[in-house]
Amino acid sequence: MKAPADLAATVTWNEQGLAPAIVQDAASGRVLMLAWMNAESLRLSVAEGRAIFWSRSRGQLWRKGESSGHVQTLHEVRLDCDRDALLLRVEQTGGIACHTGRESCFFLRLDEQGWQAADPVLREPQQIYGGAHE
Amino acid sequence: MKAPADLAATVTWNEQGLAPAIVQDAASGRVLMLAWMNAESLRLSVAEGRAIFWSRSRGQLWRKGESSGHVQTLHEVRLDCDRDALLLRVEQTGGIACHTGRESCFFLRLDEQGWQAADPVLREPQQIYGGAHE
Repeated sequence: MKAPADLAATVTWNEQGLAPAIVQDAASGRVLMLAWMNAESLRLSVAEGRAIFWSRSRGQLWRKGESSGHVQTLHEVRLDCDRDALLLRVEQTGGIACHTGRESCFFLRLDEQGWQAADPVLREPQQIYGGAHE
Repeated sequence: MKAPADLAATVTWNEQGLAPAIVQDAASGRVLMLAWMNAESLRLSVAEGRAIFWSRSRGQLWRKGESSGHVQTLHEVRLDCDRDALLLRVEQTGGIACHTGRESCFFLRLDEQGWQAADPVLREPQQIYGGAHE
């Protein structure tokens, strides 16, 4: 998409210059993950048509799929009423968003015993990363 | 649901004691909003079977629907692989999550002209709140 110039100016970034970005599978509706964006990662995501986040732990841009191949192709970008949270509707390459090899990072489900891993591992992380971690 | 005792201990809360909570309509899959929870609001949500957040602007618990009637009944609570983000799958009373009277707070969609309101107002806010704002 050709990005409008004031794309990032409308967003209310937090004190670290970040906003949470929910990633949803556009086809299935499954919520895949939550990551963080800064203004640059949002502009780059729109310009390149793929999800690019700000990695808080590494302090650098994170092109989702750069080591796993599990690129997220953007279908739609939305902003909420407070303008401080983003929603990316994507096509998830490989059907796996989580570094554990599961479809979604939200695989822990609460029941009366506590948080239980409720979704299957679709591909072993060693097979995805070959030793390197995204 | 009978809540396990260590429910909140598993979550990695941020430096303010909060975690982002994505709210998704369990029937339609629509992402309705993103709000924040602390340990107490998570425990109360599970105990009462409805979404209760921490309002950062008001500095107090926020029982979603307390003034609008738009209560969110919990179907499922999930936690992500980093244990620092929550996903609530809910039944949205009235079909309206947003204080603007729309189904979802994520009603601003990016196109080449910028962020555009893309969803209809289902009910005027004055009719929902009668002057009071949730």
